[in-house]
Amino acid sequence: MTKPAPITPDKDLSNPVLEVDEQLVDDLSSLLDTGQRGMVLNLVADLHPADLARLISHLPRDEAEQLFEWLPADVAADVVDDLDDTFRADLLEEVETERLAEIIDELDTDEAADVLADLPEEVASQVLPELEDAAELRELLAYDEETAGGIMATELVAVSPSWTVAEATEEVRRNAETVEEIFVVFVVDETERLKGFVSLKRLLLSPAEARIGDVMKTDVPSVPTEVDQEEVARIMERYDLVSLAVVDADGCLVGRITIDDVVDVIREEAEEDIQRMSGITGDEEPTDSVLRITRGRLPWLLLGMIGAGFAGSVIGAFEHTISKVSILAAFIPVVMAMAGNAGIQSSAIIVQGLASGDVWSTDMMRRLGKETVVALINGVALAIAIALFVFVVFVGMAQLFPNVIHPVEQPFRLAVTAGLSLFVVILLAASIGTTIPLFLNRFGIDPALATGPFITTSNDIIGLIVFFALATLLYLPYVTAG
Amino acid sequence: MTKPAPITPDKDLSNPVLEVDEQLVDDLSSLLDTGQRGMVLNLVADLHPADLARLISHLPRDEAEQLFEWLPADVAADVVDDLDDTFRADLLEEVETERLAEIIDELDTDEAADVLADLPEEVASQVLPELEDAAELRELLAYDEETAGGIMATELVAVSPSWTVAEATEEVRRNAETVEEIFVVFVVDETERLKGFVSLKRLLLSPAEARIGDVMKTDVPSVPTEVDQEEVARIMERYDLVSLAVVDADGCLVGRITIDDVVDVIREEAEEDIQRMSGITGDEEPTDSVLRITRGRLPWLLLGMIGAGFAGSVIGAFEHTISKVSILAAFIPVVMAMAGNAGIQSSAIIVQGLASGDVWSTDMMRRLGKETVVALINGVALAIAIALFVFVVFVGMAQLFPNVIHPVEQPFRLAVTAGLSLFVVILLAASIGTTIPLFLNRFGIDPALATGPFITTSNDIIGLIVFFALATLLYLPYVTAG
Repeated sequence: MTKPAPITPDKDLSNPVLEVDEQLVDDLSSLLDTGQRGMVLNLVADLHPADLARLISHLPRDEAEQLFEWLPADVAADVVDDLDDTFRADLLEEVETERLAEIIDELDTDEAADVLADLPEEVASQVLPELEDAAELRELLAYDEETAGGIMATELVAVSPSWTVAEATEEVRRNAETVEEIFVVFVVDETERLKGFVSLKRLLLSPAEARIGDVMKTDVPSVPTEVDQEEVARIMERYDLVSLAVVDADGCLVGRITIDDVVDVIREEAEEDIQRMSGITGDEEPTDSVLRITRGRLPWLLLGMIGAGFAGSVIGAFEHTISKVSILAAFIPVVMAMAGNAGIQSSAIIVQGLASGDVWSTDMMRRLGKETVVALINGVALAIAIALFVFVVFVGMAQLFPNVIHPVEQPFRLAVTAGLSLFVVILLAASIGTTIPLFLNRFGIDPALATGPFITTSNDIIGLIVFFALATLLYLPYVTAG
Repeated sequence: MTKPAPITPDKDLSNPVLEVDEQLVDDLSSLLDTGQRGMVLNLVADLHPADLARLISHLPRDEAEQLFEWLPADVAADVVDDLDDTFRADLLEEVETERLAEIIDELDTDEAADVLADLPEEVASQVLPELEDAAELRELLAYDEETAGGIMATELVAVSPSWTVAEATEEVRRNAETVEEIFVVFVVDETERLKGFVSLKRLLLSPAEARIGDVMKTDVPSVPTEVDQEEVARIMERYDLVSLAVVDADGCLVGRITIDDVVDVIREEAEEDIQRMSGITGDEEPTDSVLRITRGRLPWLLLGMIGAGFAGSVIGAFEHTISKVSILAAFIPVVMAMAGNAGIQSSAIIVQGLASGDVWSTDMMRRLGKETVVALINGVALAIAIALFVFVVFVGMAQLFPNVIHPVEQPFRLAVTAGLSLFVVILLAASIGTTIPLFLNRFGIDPALATGPFITTSNDIIGLIVFFALATLLYLPYVTAG
């Protein structure tokens, strides 16, 4: 295994010799163009694989393929581990089976399974029989990619409780090559059932002749294979774990998850949430093709347009009101913005709390109470602000600049109507923003889906209905203009 | 130090005896109410500190204080580490100095510094002289909280290159109590300058009489104290590090950062980004008071209202157009939604790419090109969709249901105007969403600030101007109605 040990990047990070930037990309690009293999390999030799991966992602596709082809299999494997999923699959698809097998053989089983899962089926099934760990990989591929089984590696050190510390140390030595990241030695009985663990520190500090059964800790943290990766991340984060055992239905040790895998999960899930909130199906990467990007965005834009169409039909329904007092249309953006923003604020906090486990789905009434009080305060403040604003503009400024601002009838009544509407809209928006995610969560639907376009659209519609209904009731009867 | 070792939670996580849920909170609450100290402590004795912290966060404030007061200092310390910042500060403020010192003494220096930084100044300055590590903590408190110096701990094992492996192992043993999480032993010269490191695995597998200078790796990853915590997270994530040395300006080792601290940083920064995108000043926690929550939200709502006011004034400026053809108002939500959504999609991807380092600020032209092509495709698709919709509603459906939908004049012209506007709006929105974050980033401003209310508002305004300008030019001259 040539994957760098967790704490040994190939070079001093504090003093990078080569800055991975546009300049280096350009230099490399022209060397690749002129086919100068030796100089290219020389230039990238000092780079950490993670930096090399960033560099390759910034090269034009054909040059990236050329450079990747020239890399020794072990370096290529290190790079593969750091590339975006789609970009990686595209790149590896072009590699011939023999070299592909050579590259994948250099990876840890969890990474190899990831790579295989992303490859087109015919490429994967062609390369799989050629791999050293084919049997293990077939098993790993059977797990759902986003579960403990899907992210675990099978590389681990397991010893028997009857062994001595010296024997266990020897076992670590035997596995030192294949298991680079060792934080703990797992203890299993003859049927592979997980019994305990010994940290490396404890192994180092215990007498050589001591029995593992006597020095091990029995309260070993473990999860079954089918646990969702988000739950795995939450457990490792909450309990500050660097290594977590994965067991099958019989309690037998089948793999382990290390903290660096979970760091990737946390980052991925956070990026997915932000993308979902922004109306993007949650896995766009900067290296994605234009068509792939469009596929992830257009459906949400269409959905948003349909939602906005409903909001538009609310306005259409009040066309008579607007045709009578067209200045009311100027309030549409304010009503929509406030309904959307207040709703998003509430729901973002709920979604975040649910994801971290700080908010429970049973917290409904407590959260609703708190959000309602916040909405009351914000609603009163903004209602006063808009009422004052309307009054100042349509009374004060209309008198000062009669050519720019046309005075309205009953400005005081308009100000009160606007303020009251805003207050009601904010209160409703906060309630909807709070309850919908909690409600979805209760029924096992990812509440992150609710924060984005969905809440905004429903709040827009409700906000507009409230405003125009109140305006028709409280303001329209008192104006004469047409 | 009683902080649990990273891989030793107090109980089997896969089989929790007590589920931390509403039921347990209720049970505990009634025991606390009736002052049954023994039963309360009995009930919580089996809980992992992280679970106990979640439990306390869900209790009413006075009961939380009561329970916290009853906890032994070492358990209280473990709990403190897992509480939300504000909630923790509120809780600790009430604790008398002597016990507070006892609790903080149980914490690692990085956590102790965090706790002290969040306490009211007079409380912190009162307790600081009472602490065992007062001198070290004073130094740590001098660093900005969000830098490497601010998140590092001073607990570490450092040895000399001239020592043997056996001597280094003895040093690990001497520090085993205070430094619970040991992944590596750092190697420093007589002036404390960082020279290398030895992983525990290497220490375990090297002959006892070997020199540290011969077995150490010299390419030790390190950062200066002033590096931002986000950059620290990026480095540890990119290079899969579990431990990172922190050095001062002279290259002397002053502390180390472990991966579990960085996991917290990644989670915090992701939550902050999501909150900022949702118009919340980035540090609201579920346990925050109503007033604190309002302080973080109201300013953004006000800003949003002012922005929407500008959008409203655009509509006001076209009041004449609307009063002539009031059905145009129904298009306002569609234009605003599409301008907002398309802009948010582009900017979210750029902000995310900048944060992860996958997008460089020099990528401006390349990204703009890609986003423009995506916007062209989406724009054409949505323009056709809205044009068809307008045509179907105002020609087809208006004929079928003449009482519900009033026909408009020149429906074909209206459809083309709407489609063309939407196309231009989406193209402009995507360009603005792409360039503003890249632009801000170039000038050292956090681009996450740009994604939320700012881009939405500016896109709303520009979208409305485009729509009403095109409608006034292309549609209005051809209708006669008033």
